[in-house]
Amino acid sequence: MTAMKPEQQPGPGARANQASPADQELGSNSPPQRNWKGIAIALLVILVVCSLITMSVILLTPDELTNSSETRLSLDDLFRKDFVLHDLEARWINDTDVVYKRENGHVIKLNIETNTTTLLLENTTFVTFKASRHSVSPDLKYVLLAYDVKQIYIFENNIYYQPDIKSSSLRLTSSGKEGIIFNGIADWLYEEEILHSHIAHWWSPDGERLAFLMINDSLVPNMVIPRFTGALYPKGKLYPYPKAGQVNPTIKLYVVNLYGPTHTLELMPPDSFKSREYYITMVKWVSNTKTVVRWLNRPQNISVLTVCETTTGACSRKYEMTSDTWLSKQNEEPVFSRDGSRFFMTVPVKQGGRGEFHHIAMFLIQSKSEQITVRHLTSGNWEVIKILAYDETTKKIYFLSTELSSRGRHLYSASTEGLLNRHCISCNFMKEECTYFGASFSPMNQHFLLLCEGPGIPLVSLHSTDNPSKYFVLESNSMLREALLKKKMAKSEIKMLHIDDYELPLQLSFPKDFTDRNQYALLLIMDEEPGGQLVTDKFSIDWDSVLVDTDNVIIARFDGRGSGFQGLKILQEIHRRLGSVEVKDQISAIKFLLKQPYIDSKRLSIFGKGYGGYIASMILKSDEKFFKCGSVIAPITDLKLYASAFSERYLGMPSKEENTYQASSVLHNIHGLKEENILIIHGTADTKVHFQHSAELIKHLIKSGVNYTMQIYPDEDHNISEKSKYHLYNTILRFFGNCLKEEISLLPQEPEEDE
Amino acid sequence: MTAMKPEQQPGPGARANQASPADQELGSNSPPQRNWKGIAIALLVILVVCSLITMSVILLTPDELTNSSETRLSLDDLFRKDFVLHDLEARWINDTDVVYKRENGHVIKLNIETNTTTLLLENTTFVTFKASRHSVSPDLKYVLLAYDVKQIYIFENNIYYQPDIKSSSLRLTSSGKEGIIFNGIADWLYEEEILHSHIAHWWSPDGERLAFLMINDSLVPNMVIPRFTGALYPKGKLYPYPKAGQVNPTIKLYVVNLYGPTHTLELMPPDSFKSREYYITMVKWVSNTKTVVRWLNRPQNISVLTVCETTTGACSRKYEMTSDTWLSKQNEEPVFSRDGSRFFMTVPVKQGGRGEFHHIAMFLIQSKSEQITVRHLTSGNWEVIKILAYDETTKKIYFLSTELSSRGRHLYSASTEGLLNRHCISCNFMKEECTYFGASFSPMNQHFLLLCEGPGIPLVSLHSTDNPSKYFVLESNSMLREALLKKKMAKSEIKMLHIDDYELPLQLSFPKDFTDRNQYALLLIMDEEPGGQLVTDKFSIDWDSVLVDTDNVIIARFDGRGSGFQGLKILQEIHRRLGSVEVKDQISAIKFLLKQPYIDSKRLSIFGKGYGGYIASMILKSDEKFFKCGSVIAPITDLKLYASAFSERYLGMPSKEENTYQASSVLHNIHGLKEENILIIHGTADTKVHFQHSAELIKHLIKSGVNYTMQIYPDEDHNISEKSKYHLYNTILRFFGNCLKEEISLLPQEPEEDE
Repeated sequence: MTAMKPEQQPGPGARANQASPADQELGSNSPPQRNWKGIAIALLVILVVCSLITMSVILLTPDELTNSSETRLSLDDLFRKDFVLHDLEARWINDTDVVYKRENGHVIKLNIETNTTTLLLENTTFVTFKASRHSVSPDLKYVLLAYDVKQIYIFENNIYYQPDIKSSSLRLTSSGKEGIIFNGIADWLYEEEILHSHIAHWWSPDGERLAFLMINDSLVPNMVIPRFTGALYPKGKLYPYPKAGQVNPTIKLYVVNLYGPTHTLELMPPDSFKSREYYITMVKWVSNTKTVVRWLNRPQNISVLTVCETTTGACSRKYEMTSDTWLSKQNEEPVFSRDGSRFFMTVPVKQGGRGEFHHIAMFLIQSKSEQITVRHLTSGNWEVIKILAYDETTKKIYFLSTELSSRGRHLYSASTEGLLNRHCISCNFMKEECTYFGASFSPMNQHFLLLCEGPGIPLVSLHSTDNPSKYFVLESNSMLREALLKKKMAKSEIKMLHIDDYELPLQLSFPKDFTDRNQYALLLIMDEEPGGQLVTDKFSIDWDSVLVDTDNVIIARFDGRGSGFQGLKILQEIHRRLGSVEVKDQISAIKFLLKQPYIDSKRLSIFGKGYGGYIASMILKSDEKFFKCGSVIAPITDLKLYASAFSERYLGMPSKEENTYQASSVLHNIHGLKEENILIIHGTADTKVHFQHSAELIKHLIKSGVNYTMQIYPDEDHNISEKSKYHLYNTILRFFGNCLKEEISLLPQEPEEDE
Repeated sequence: MTAMKPEQQPGPGARANQASPADQELGSNSPPQRNWKGIAIALLVILVVCSLITMSVILLTPDELTNSSETRLSLDDLFRKDFVLHDLEARWINDTDVVYKRENGHVIKLNIETNTTTLLLENTTFVTFKASRHSVSPDLKYVLLAYDVKQIYIFENNIYYQPDIKSSSLRLTSSGKEGIIFNGIADWLYEEEILHSHIAHWWSPDGERLAFLMINDSLVPNMVIPRFTGALYPKGKLYPYPKAGQVNPTIKLYVVNLYGPTHTLELMPPDSFKSREYYITMVKWVSNTKTVVRWLNRPQNISVLTVCETTTGACSRKYEMTSDTWLSKQNEEPVFSRDGSRFFMTVPVKQGGRGEFHHIAMFLIQSKSEQITVRHLTSGNWEVIKILAYDETTKKIYFLSTELSSRGRHLYSASTEGLLNRHCISCNFMKEECTYFGASFSPMNQHFLLLCEGPGIPLVSLHSTDNPSKYFVLESNSMLREALLKKKMAKSEIKMLHIDDYELPLQLSFPKDFTDRNQYALLLIMDEEPGGQLVTDKFSIDWDSVLVDTDNVIIARFDGRGSGFQGLKILQEIHRRLGSVEVKDQISAIKFLLKQPYIDSKRLSIFGKGYGGYIASMILKSDEKFFKCGSVIAPITDLKLYASAFSERYLGMPSKEENTYQASSVLHNIHGLKEENILIIHGTADTKVHFQHSAELIKHLIKSGVNYTMQIYPDEDHNISEKSKYHLYNTILRFFGNCLKEEISLLPQEPEEDE
């Protein structure tokens, strides 16, 4: 062993900052002066003692003491009342009245013209209201007081209709069977992967007709969800869950006429779908008797938009889309003009070499021939996110897009005539604070709510369409704003990485007192779903913010191939290559990060949930070993065990000839996972990513002799319940905190990094 | 902060031994000599460097390097072939032939007279042989070749009889229903808690009659064992499992006559049991037509021994036992004289203030009146463990007892006449190596096998009854003997603790190079069942041996109240106080240990499995906090969730009036568990202690915000499978290794212990 400087300092990092200056002063005095032998010896002794004390303090002082600064964000802060972002749940009643929920829970009606508010519901009744408000008819008078009306409810998967409070209810369907046939509500697959809602019934504008899905799961295999707690003999739960390649539910769309003699009519799929398996991904009423319906084949590469006449059941094709990979945005509801002669919808439009982007198309229906003329209203290397409204008077269309930045969302208007003049409405609104917007227009488009969702603290403002720059702030989240003033918050930075002709965004969150003369630990966070977006201007404060602020960890998020809102080419690169291109891109991001002087290459970690847990696991088991530790929550470990509609979208049907599924499985060649320190977290009653995934993973890890740490949440679902969230966050933070904490390098062989 | 000696040494312990001498030499030179300033400074610098290097080495060197000595026992050693203790599975065929399995798996017949061996079965067929050998008739000719005979087998819980290899099989029962009615095999409760075997049928000596139990579980609630792996849609398993206070299986005993017209006769319980719930705990043939049967009431405090005439079905009471607490040893088979006029059995005999001990009683049956005379053959403050044989010629009885020491087992003979002269046969046999024996007598008692089970390496020897000192060693485990010669092995010491008028044994296993000038970490291991014995002279080598040898941890085992083989008073102290007296006694043992200078009070830990996990948890949540960490495997956390026959034996039936069950639950007042570092291990398919126990524990821990570490073994039962055992042991060893490793005390405030 080579000699070691006696004045050696512990490694860099904020925790040592308080102790360091004293040591450095002493260190500079260390050469003994020949004529001051006593002093020299004394100094040396003091030096040694100080070094040891410093080390002791660092080694043994509990975290609370070193991080005693009031301004660091703590886990407890996240659970404080003033840290809750308030959701107004605002809804337009008509063009002058908006209903929303106050922070105290009261439901308020605000009249914009008179600027008066009315208390509609006390906070005590709101829970009930919230639970039932989706199920009410759109004739407005019940919307707000729906909490005790229950005009329609679905019992044992059958639909009952109760015309008013006093009359008895009428059973509209009789085929419903618990867990087998679902009338008007979604089964697991439809709720989670197709409709993204449990609602599978839709009222006509006049409330006279009800369209509903009948989802038949009788041939779908059942999955067992075990139960462990709460009873002497807890019973498991069965429910239909089609895994990749298994029998899917069959679907039919009915419309029932509620006035006069009730009768039910089936709306028929397009001829080309009649002998195939298909999904219904969208149903919307466009008039009192017409609905627009989107049908998607099982491989998810052909979809047909039809308009159906609910008086006869006849559906006519309006638009067919096909894809070489899969079709995205299949839930999008087209916006129709009042007379039904035109509608607006986004369609993929090719933008040169950069591939397709979603842009607005206007579809004009020739009244006689029913022929369709399409006009593209927008174009460019950016995406239209959502079409919000069509103003019949001004012939303007309102929408959200990423034109300014793929990380932001701005509200635009565009003319549907002439030069299609486009105008950004939100671009100058609170520029510093707000670049990520949502919006909600009043029925006649006279007013709109603008939802600034970041990067500053979210606020909701009310604007008039005529003069959008005049506004009234409905919600400014003032409590949170004040609370955060006292906190050191992370600073965020975007770097664009050039990978395979793409420019892909990497977001880094740095501790407030970051300095590139220090080296920091890093946590790389994976996205939860393919097609999502991690790097956005949206405000967020979560457990990772605590890690940045109290543990001085840099958080990295990278939207590689497979991520959304940057054009379809980037998104669809993962087709039949799921778990491969994402891994490559994340590794590229890591390699970029490793070149940064402020990253401590020995303290890298990774995190992901669901699909993110899948990608994290695939990265951990890849040949290149970057990470000191990783944590996965409810990881998908084999796409064959996951939902048909998801797995088949990306990998196709499983077949014996192809090994796409095997190649994409975490369980395949598991021995790659050998070296890391892994924390696996899973709720045992997860209905989305079954506990089976982690069980198989663990079984393979045990077989390969790999060590790991486990945390289970008994009888909890995919999203861990509120009551266990503190424990969950604490578990994750302790895991990363311990793994990423600075180790005091005492081995003299290792040269110290320049700092 | 006070000053700190510059020559401070890292804490004691074997790991630092190599570095220490050098440091100590330097340390003795440390006072600077005034006229040698340069040397003094140089020495100080060297000293500092050395201290730091020593610390670095200790802190950073991986375990393999510091423990590189060849003589330390490692986890891998335990899985080496030469470390396997070989079980001969020896059986007497007649008085001159013994059959046993060689280390290579061959099954050998040894004739003692001629000293010749015959190969009966190649090792390749042995697996089958082993599986079926219990089910063969005792007419000998099939015993050895039973592997392809299958003279009786039980299919779908019905009994079939196949008189010889060529004839077709005959169904003897038809009531069998998978998982509901069990004919001839035990249900879960009978196998695990009553008979301690899955066999519930017994052949008469001439093979003409078969006695069997019909266990009816149709009213017993079913427990679900979930399944997670191995299939796309894994299915759970249901089986009857009566928890405390729930409906028990009903039981009937039948005898079927196989020669001539087969007919089945029920053997009736004693009148006093007819209207009660009861168990049958023992069935044994005493002649070709008579069986002896033991009946036990559900509260387990009244048992009746009957002799049944299987030609008529009439049973006559021979002996009734009652207890204020519960009756133990209910599986014991009485040893009958050939003519059936006398039998031998152990019964509790009061020994003054020290309570009852099990001693041999001889029961003489008056042939005419059927009246019974009892004569006690042994007495004293020790226990008769097992009656092995009764020699009709010499009128001697052979048995194992704890007369010499409660930790040992010796083979004795005693006369059944006159002065009842008692003689120890094994006491002088390999005195140094062997104090814990088992034995097996040939049918006519001419020879016996002596099984030395410890404290040395086990061996099996063959003796003649006439001259026991002449012997032949059948198995000496020479491979293991040789392998262990190269290993440092723990040294064990017994201390007797005086608690509440009892003298209770505490066993300590010290590392080979133990010195009481050092301080050591400690692991306290709990017993797996009440009534067991941890402190014995039995040889054992397991994961805890690795912890002693490679991690320098002292292992402690303490048999407090509730443990067995030291008289019934100690055993039965836990009646209605389960989880309370055991905790008190273990805490007393800890307090004793804390007074020993060689125990590091900051590094105590605890371990237990099943019931032991229950006691460990109860200790961990008690008010007194001794432990740095603890690990439990498949812990019982609430006796209400555990098997009726077990829980009711100790706590009675659950009732709403009494809170015995609640008070004894780990889940009650769980917040006591706050401070420790806990590792919970459980197989998810545990049929004995359901995963439910750990799930409830975890749910409560999460609710109370307690941190813990979890390790699950997916789809594994109570005893973790061989294929996962390495992973299990590794997990436990890493956990305790990390928790118990010496921390280098750098804080100068703390005065160092004398070493």
